[in-house]
Amino acid sequence: MHIFSLFIFSLLLAAASEALVQDFCVADLSLPAGPAGYPCKKPASVTENDFFYHGLATPGSINKRVGAGVASALDAQFPALNGLGISILRLDLAVGGLVPLHSHPAATELVVVIEGTITLGFISSNDNKVYIKTLNKWDIFVVPQGLLHFAINAGKTPALAFASFSSQNPGIQTTPVALFKNNFPTELVAKTTFLDVEQVKKLKALLGGTN
Amino acid sequence: MHIFSLFIFSLLLAAASEALVQDFCVADLSLPAGPAGYPCKKPASVTENDFFYHGLATPGSINKRVGAGVASALDAQFPALNGLGISILRLDLAVGGLVPLHSHPAATELVVVIEGTITLGFISSNDNKVYIKTLNKWDIFVVPQGLLHFAINAGKTPALAFASFSSQNPGIQTTPVALFKNNFPTELVAKTTFLDVEQVKKLKALLGGTN
Amino acid sequence: MHIFSLFIFSLLLAAASEALVQDFCVADLSLPAGPAGYPCKKPASVTENDFFYHGLATPGSINKRVGAGVASALDAQFPALNGLGISILRLDLAVGGLVPLHSHPAATELVVVIEGTITLGFISSNDNKVYIKTLNKWDIFVVPQGLLHFAINAGKTPALAFASFSSQNPGIQTTPVALFKNNFPTELVAKTTFLDVEQVKKLKALLGGTN
Amino acid sequence: MHIFSLFIFSLLLAAASEALVQDFCVADLSLPAGPAGYPCKKPASVTENDFFYHGLATPGSINKRVGAGVASALDAQFPALNGLGISILRLDLAVGGLVPLHSHPAATELVVVIEGTITLGFISSNDNKVYIKTLNKWDIFVVPQGLLHFAINAGKTPALAFASFSSQNPGIQTTPVALFKNNFPTELVAKTTFLDVEQVKKLKALLGGTN
Amino acid sequence: MHIFSLFIFSLLLAAASEALVQDFCVADLSLPAGPAGYPCKKPASVTENDFFYHGLATPGSINKRVGAGVASALDAQFPALNGLGISILRLDLAVGGLVPLHSHPAATELVVVIEGTITLGFISSNDNKVYIKTLNKWDIFVVPQGLLHFAINAGKTPALAFASFSSQNPGIQTTPVALFKNNFPTELVAKTTFLDVEQVKKLKALLGGTN
Amino acid sequence: MHIFSLFIFSLLLAAASEALVQDFCVADLSLPAGPAGYPCKKPASVTENDFFYHGLATPGSINKRVGAGVASALDAQFPALNGLGISILRLDLAVGGLVPLHSHPAATELVVVIEGTITLGFISSNDNKVYIKTLNKWDIFVVPQGLLHFAINAGKTPALAFASFSSQNPGIQTTPVALFKNNFPTELVAKTTFLDVEQVKKLKALLGGTN
Repeated sequence: MHIFSLFIFSLLLAAASEALVQDFCVADLSLPAGPAGYPCKKPASVTENDFFYHGLATPGSINKRVGAGVASALDAQFPALNGLGISILRLDLAVGGLVPLHSHPAATELVVVIEGTITLGFISSNDNKVYIKTLNKWDIFVVPQGLLHFAINAGKTPALAFASFSSQNPGIQTTPVALFKNNFPTELVAKTTFLDVEQVKKLKALLGGTN
Repeated sequence: MHIFSLFIFSLLLAAASEALVQDFCVADLSLPAGPAGYPCKKPASVTENDFFYHGLATPGSINKRVGAGVASALDAQFPALNGLGISILRLDLAVGGLVPLHSHPAATELVVVIEGTITLGFISSNDNKVYIKTLNKWDIFVVPQGLLHFAINAGKTPALAFASFSSQNPGIQTTPVALFKNNFPTELVAKTTFLDVEQVKKLKALLGGTN
Repeated sequence: MHIFSLFIFSLLLAAASEALVQDFCVADLSLPAGPAGYPCKKPASVTENDFFYHGLATPGSINKRVGAGVASALDAQFPALNGLGISILRLDLAVGGLVPLHSHPAATELVVVIEGTITLGFISSNDNKVYIKTLNKWDIFVVPQGLLHFAINAGKTPALAFASFSSQNPGIQTTPVALFKNNFPTELVAKTTFLDVEQVKKLKALLGGTN
Repeated sequence: MHIFSLFIFSLLLAAASEALVQDFCVADLSLPAGPAGYPCKKPASVTENDFFYHGLATPGSINKRVGAGVASALDAQFPALNGLGISILRLDLAVGGLVPLHSHPAATELVVVIEGTITLGFISSNDNKVYIKTLNKWDIFVVPQGLLHFAINAGKTPALAFASFSSQNPGIQTTPVALFKNNFPTELVAKTTFLDVEQVKKLKALLGGTN
Repeated sequence: MHIFSLFIFSLLLAAASEALVQDFCVADLSLPAGPAGYPCKKPASVTENDFFYHGLATPGSINKRVGAGVASALDAQFPALNGLGISILRLDLAVGGLVPLHSHPAATELVVVIEGTITLGFISSNDNKVYIKTLNKWDIFVVPQGLLHFAINAGKTPALAFASFSSQNPGIQTTPVALFKNNFPTELVAKTTFLDVEQVKKLKALLGGTN
Repeated sequence: MHIFSLFIFSLLLAAASEALVQDFCVADLSLPAGPAGYPCKKPASVTENDFFYHGLATPGSINKRVGAGVASALDAQFPALNGLGISILRLDLAVGGLVPLHSHPAATELVVVIEGTITLGFISSNDNKVYIKTLNKWDIFVVPQGLLHFAINAGKTPALAFASFSSQNPGIQTTPVALFKNNFPTELVAKTTFLDVEQVKKLKALLGGTN
């Protein structure tokens, strides 16, 4: 075997270390992001703790009425995800709990059920077909990017799932929130959705929307 | 100047012409697509007519009740767009006409008004803000990918606009269609949107949905 | 129906709002861009006016001699396009007007004729074929990325078209400008294009080139 | 509210349905893939079962000696993932079990621990730093694309984790497998890794490598 | 050390081997390509010879008049490059030889001079600046994607260079070829480039163009 | 021919010059990079020297024991490569010299032999096959992204090659360096690679690793 010397590897590494450390780009959230993500923290300040996140050990608070809690690990919570094209959240569903209809403009979602029984479904866009399955422990379901989908606890016990995304920040647009919980003018909401004005007003009142 | 000989250019072109003609990949719609698009027609069969499309000279039929007609030039109508990352449609709005709330999972939309006055708006996802502007002739408006948006004729004359997309096939998911015009179970629609069951049933009846 | 409480949605939104608003990234043009575009303006400072652009209501000035005017809505004029992969310009052609041969290194171009009659053409690269079509009102034509193309008013009235691009900033390289309107040494221009030195000098003089 | 007619929506959908259903592209595994993935199954043959996968309910067999079992849901097992940029696997670690050092050329990996205690670590490339963390239930850890990493059960009970990937098929290259379990000539293995020839021979014998 | 058993690795590999071998996708040139490249040859038929190419050992024929010869290793010559985003060619320049002005629509080019002295230059698009450098042995020069560039032997001996591209098939559009060596109508060439009709006719005659 | 006036082109260029010069984005290495690369230097400060690099004229120092020297032209050495998706290095191998087993997480590598005889090989991931070829002058070999590979001088004279990459910064992870030249705990190295603890200790001592 060749006798090894530190020297050559230093030389080989020297050539390389002049380059950006681009294995990862832990977000410096104090600087403005660009279309591809945030600027990177200095590599020298990065430790193993940057690649670790404990926040999903705490369920998001569950509102007893809707029965859903979400704890997210997206780029904002877990800056190491910056530029890496993946993120995850924890979903807790109380008995009868549900996640309202919503879409993720920026990512495909892959759900794995950890406890309980969850019915998941999405609607395709051009074909307008509904794809619904009921999942048990360890079952998985995929929701293609940008499509409306929901989740509902179909069992008699609380349910738990993890949802991974093909983006560090998938975005979320929840239909009743987008329609009723802002200042989207009532008349326009009604006209563009075919809902009755009274229905719109009722839900705006409930959701804290205005206008 | 150098005396030019066909020979050298043949040689230079010979090196190149063995390669795929990849300037474009006019879709062979008879073959299955993959994630990036359709297989290409043989280059020898491609003419200038492949890059030309006349179909937007005819407005999509306008239903007098909703007052919107769409004529599309996506990859399926205009196969040369395959792999080129762009498409366009023509929108005609009768007086009082509108395009219902919808999203394009796969593309950003850029609208230019050609005639009339059109109010356009979208809702952002995480922030849930509503951005509405009224556009006149030659004004443009951009709707970022995947977000809910609508258009409504705000004038006293018919309106016309062209909408370009950053994809050969942006997809379209129209909220009332996705909610009410398929077999998405009524109870689930109501629960996941907070709509009244009666509202859901009413619109399913109107839209031809079932279940 | 479940009684809705603001609380749960706040919770759901809380998880989301900690993330970057990445629906869009309106360019902060005062900061340096990177390969993917500019850093984003703070979301709090973004209004509906950011997504609206009125500049195409004014034709670009038409030089009576060449008869073409361009008004652009690229990222520099319309910062909301930053990161969105699309842009548009307005082209006015006087009678007999034309756009000289040019290419867009960064984007495919999709042209829709609004008024008049325009002959458009491009040349493919490896195959070196010429694809020319004459377009009338509402006709569309696509020019794949990076290829030389031109436009010429083929009718007896002024013509107007909009050209969309599959990039926020397609770039433009105009052949006579690149050859004759800079300090590209005359002898090199002649040798690398096979043009006569006299032709090069004549056009450099006309175009204001040097060297 | 506008009276709704099926007709207009048929019209709007007609424009859209001529386009490819490109929300998803469930793989037709019987056809050759291309660089972006497999050709799509016909949309008409796609059902909700295509988006559901039950295979992770069964742990991969655990070899008592190494104590690791993997059940994968990549594109080959779960064809709906084709083109969607995400996949997942289930990892079971017996007490003392481990996953040998390996890399995924094509994807970032995001691990969530479901049961037990797992020590995960990776080595950065240019900087050659080691990042190791011990994870408990619900902790997550991210391994950037292409970097060597390992997992080892650090607790006194069996451990379970799910690993998501930012690709439908991340690939896997396991260091001892690549070095010792094929016909990579012994002398070359030794020279290019600085291992003793005897060490190489010993492990080739153990692993079933040749040459 | 753990006693190793072939079994566990078979298990680990079994999970993986059901997936497509997607390390590479050696082109099956007999099938139509799609926008991302060609379908893959069956992995079982791939050998080390697929990753090796000997063709650049033979210079492209040099036409004594222009003094340039090109031997290409693009996807068509070297099918293993399919999907891998890189290619290379060999350029031989006789004394006084040159490569006419051209662009690569699809790729950045990186040139390394192996023998002799070569002057390389490109013109930027929007800014229309000319960037010219003379390179000696081992010097490198980069030409950004889509921009017009040329090369000319600046020394007294034959020159040799290799040019790498950031695409498996960069495309090539050579200005005098695109203008004069096809059936692009003479009058249009003249009008869209400002060249004299006589110059166009002269070069069409020389180059074998028509019309 | 139309009489040409500077004016129109100024107008056309005016529209364009307001846009970012995005032909290139020469890295400002003094600012933090983001996931897509560094912010751009001001275009006004860019000259032809930015696109030229002389550093490969000097071989990297060759350590007589291992017999390999590398001189790199990645983004850090050659900032014009920022955002352009390509880079290159020069490899000098003394008689008997070699490059240890390593991978590039971020890029495909394309090697051209300039002098001598070099044996190159890589191992595929899922299939775990070894692909080895011996190359002579002008032969080329491609190593798909992320896979382990090596090079060894197979001749009786020094060898020289250039390796191009499909990324401005491919990264490098060298197996013995990652295993033995850092503080990766000895016991973990042994367990996760099946190496004998004694072998690990021996090489850590040789390489300057700790722990």
